[in-house]
Amino acid sequence: MTAAAGPGASTQLPAHDHAARRDRLRGMLTEAGADLLLVTDPANVRYLSGFTGSNGQVLVAARPGDDRLVTDHRYESRAADEAPALMLTLSRDAVGVALVLGRDGTLAVEAGHLSWAAGHRLQTRAEEAGVAVLPTTGMVERPRMVKDDAEVARLALACDLTQIALQWLFDEVVAVGRTERELATALQRRFVDTGADGVAFPSIVAGGPNAAVPHHDPTDRPLQHGDLLTVDCGAMIDGYHADHTRTVAIGSLDDELARVHALVVDAQAAGRAAVRAGIAAGEVDRAAREVIERAGYGERFVHGTGHGVGLAIHEAPAVARGSADRLDAATALTVEPGIYLPGLGGVRIEDTIVVTADGPPRTLTDTPRELRVL
Amino acid sequence: MTAAAGPGASTQLPAHDHAARRDRLRGMLTEAGADLLLVTDPANVRYLSGFTGSNGQVLVAARPGDDRLVTDHRYESRAADEAPALMLTLSRDAVGVALVLGRDGTLAVEAGHLSWAAGHRLQTRAEEAGVAVLPTTGMVERPRMVKDDAEVARLALACDLTQIALQWLFDEVVAVGRTERELATALQRRFVDTGADGVAFPSIVAGGPNAAVPHHDPTDRPLQHGDLLTVDCGAMIDGYHADHTRTVAIGSLDDELARVHALVVDAQAAGRAAVRAGIAAGEVDRAAREVIERAGYGERFVHGTGHGVGLAIHEAPAVARGSADRLDAATALTVEPGIYLPGLGGVRIEDTIVVTADGPPRTLTDTPRELRVL
Repeated sequence: MTAAAGPGASTQLPAHDHAARRDRLRGMLTEAGADLLLVTDPANVRYLSGFTGSNGQVLVAARPGDDRLVTDHRYESRAADEAPALMLTLSRDAVGVALVLGRDGTLAVEAGHLSWAAGHRLQTRAEEAGVAVLPTTGMVERPRMVKDDAEVARLALACDLTQIALQWLFDEVVAVGRTERELATALQRRFVDTGADGVAFPSIVAGGPNAAVPHHDPTDRPLQHGDLLTVDCGAMIDGYHADHTRTVAIGSLDDELARVHALVVDAQAAGRAAVRAGIAAGEVDRAAREVIERAGYGERFVHGTGHGVGLAIHEAPAVARGSADRLDAATALTVEPGIYLPGLGGVRIEDTIVVTADGPPRTLTDTPRELRVL
Repeated sequence: MTAAAGPGASTQLPAHDHAARRDRLRGMLTEAGADLLLVTDPANVRYLSGFTGSNGQVLVAARPGDDRLVTDHRYESRAADEAPALMLTLSRDAVGVALVLGRDGTLAVEAGHLSWAAGHRLQTRAEEAGVAVLPTTGMVERPRMVKDDAEVARLALACDLTQIALQWLFDEVVAVGRTERELATALQRRFVDTGADGVAFPSIVAGGPNAAVPHHDPTDRPLQHGDLLTVDCGAMIDGYHADHTRTVAIGSLDDELARVHALVVDAQAAGRAAVRAGIAAGEVDRAAREVIERAGYGERFVHGTGHGVGLAIHEAPAVARGSADRLDAATALTVEPGIYLPGLGGVRIEDTIVVTADGPPRTLTDTPRELRVL
C-alpha cells in the first residue's frame, strides 16, 4: 500500500504541478496518434494526479480539459483532497470509462502495467466498442526520469533524513555485540521519529560474512571485531525514496578487506565523475566497473552500478552494462558499485545524485566515503 | 520490497512445507495439460519456495524433481538459505530458462501477473522455440485460499500482536488532543517493538469527520470530545498479514453515531455467523449487508464485507456482493462491514477469521466489539 502522505516533515515543500506533467504527456500522446491514455501503474497515477489510494487510474486526454481520475467509493474524499483539479469518476471499471470516453478513437494503454489477462479482456471489449487499442511502454516512465523542482526537494529531504539517521547509527548505536536486526529496527524508528513518512525499503544491515550478500536480510548475528558492516537504507518523503549505503569497519580489518574498501571508494568516485547530461547511463556503469575490473575483482561486482530513483525505489534509467537510457539534467539516480567476497565480507558505497545541466552532479548524500573504523 | 524475514517473533513457528504446496499444484498442472508453470507473482513465488528476494521466479514441473527457482546473483545466498531444497538457476531471463526446460511441451504462465508487453514478447519467443503457451489465472491463488498449519500459525501470531498493540493504544495512548498521526506512529513502533516483522499496511487512524472516510490517511487533526475514532491496522509475521479494525468513542456520542455503532456490531456478527465451509463468499456479504440495509443505511456501506488475507493483504476470496468464491475449511478472510456518514463520522468493525471444517469460524482477533468510550 502507499505510505502516509500526511503533513509531516514535508509540509514546507514546494507543491507538485500535476497539470504540467499531464500537459507534457499530452504532447507525447498526440505524437503517438492516440486520443486517450489509460494510466494504471500506481506510481504513474500518483505522478500525474497526486492520488495515493490503492485503487486509482488516470485518463489523460489528447484534448486538454478532459483528463480524469477514476477510483472507487472508498477513496471519494481522498481523491477530492489529493487531486482537486481533476474530474473524478467513481467506478471500479476504468476500462469501461475509457472505452466510453475514447469512442471511435485510439486508446493508448500501459502494456507494461496491465496484465496479459487484462490486456486480452481489454482488446475484446475495445473491438466491441469500436475503439482502437495502442499498447505503449515507458510513456510516463520516460518523462518521470527527469525530476521537477518539487520532486528534487522531496528526494533531497528524504536523503537528508537518511544520512542524519545513518550518521547517528554509526556514532551512537553500532557496537560489538549488537545484532543486525537491532540496528535495522533502530534505523526504522529513527526515520519515523525524524519525520519521514516511512522507510523506502526494509534496511539492509549486513555484518561480517553476511556483508558478502548484496541483498541481505538482517539476522540475529552480533557484530564482531574485524567485521565489515554494510548498511543500505533510505527514508521516504511524500512517496519519494532515498537510497544510501556505507560500509564501515568494526575494529581493525583484514588487509584484503581494507584494500577492497578503498577500491570501491575509487570505483564509486569514478562512476559519479562520469555522470553528466547527454550520456548513456551505461557509461556510468562502465566507468565504475573498469576500476574494479582493472584490480581483478570484476567477477565479484555482481550487480549493476545503479538505478533511477523517485516515486519508485527502482525506476528508469537502468545504470547497468550497455544501458542506452540517456541521462538528462535533473535525472535522479544512484551510483553504488560493490565487491562481495563469499565467506569473508563485502563493501558497497552508494549515493543518490541528480544530474545537472552542466558540471558535476548534485550529490544528495555525502556521508564520508573513506573507511571509517568504529 | 519484501519484509524482513529474520528470526524475530516467528522463530518458534512450525516450518513451511513448500514441497507439499508444489505437489498440490503439480496435480492441477497435469490436469490443465501443461508440462511446466512459470510462477512470476512474488507472493506466489514465496508461497511455493520460501524465497523472499525482490527478483525471483519459480518453475513448477509436471514431472516431480524438476522444479527450480530462478533469481539473479544478488540473491544467490539468500536463495540457498530460503529455498535449500529447490534447484537454483542464476539468470535474469526466467522466460529463457522456461523455454529451454519446456521445449516441445506446453508452458503455463500466470497471465494475471505477467504484463501485457511481457506476454507478447513471451509468445513470440515461445513460437520460435516450439513451445506452446497456456495463459492461466488463479492457478496458485486458488490453493492459496486454503491455509496450511504453518500459515495459520503465522496469521494467528500476527493477529495476536495486532490486538495487543491496539488494546495498548486504546488503554494508554488515545486521549483528547492526540493527533491521528501520533497514534499511527505509536502503533507502528509498538508493532516493531513487540517482534513483528513490520506493518501489514500503513495504519488507518481516523477521528471525527475523518472516520467517514473508509481509507483515510492519518493527519495532524487532534482528537476531540464526541469523536468516533477508527483504527484499522495489522502486524506482519514472516510475510503473513493481520487485518483488524475497531471504532471507539472519545467521550459521549451523538445518538445517531451510537446507533450506527451498534448496527455495525450486529452486521459484523451476522457476517461472522454466516461463515462456514462450503458456501459462496457472497453469502457472508449478504448476511452483513442485510442488517445494514434493513436499518436504512445500505447506501452508507460503500465497500465489500471483506477479503481473503495471507501472504497478501488482499487476496482471494472476494467477500463481496455476488462473489462465487467458495469458502473451504482453513480459508482465511476478514469480515469488516462499515457505515460512513459524510461530515459526521463512521464505524467499521473488522476481524480476521479462519473457516473451520464444521462449526463456527476461528476468530483470530477478538478485541471487544461493543462500543468502548474512552
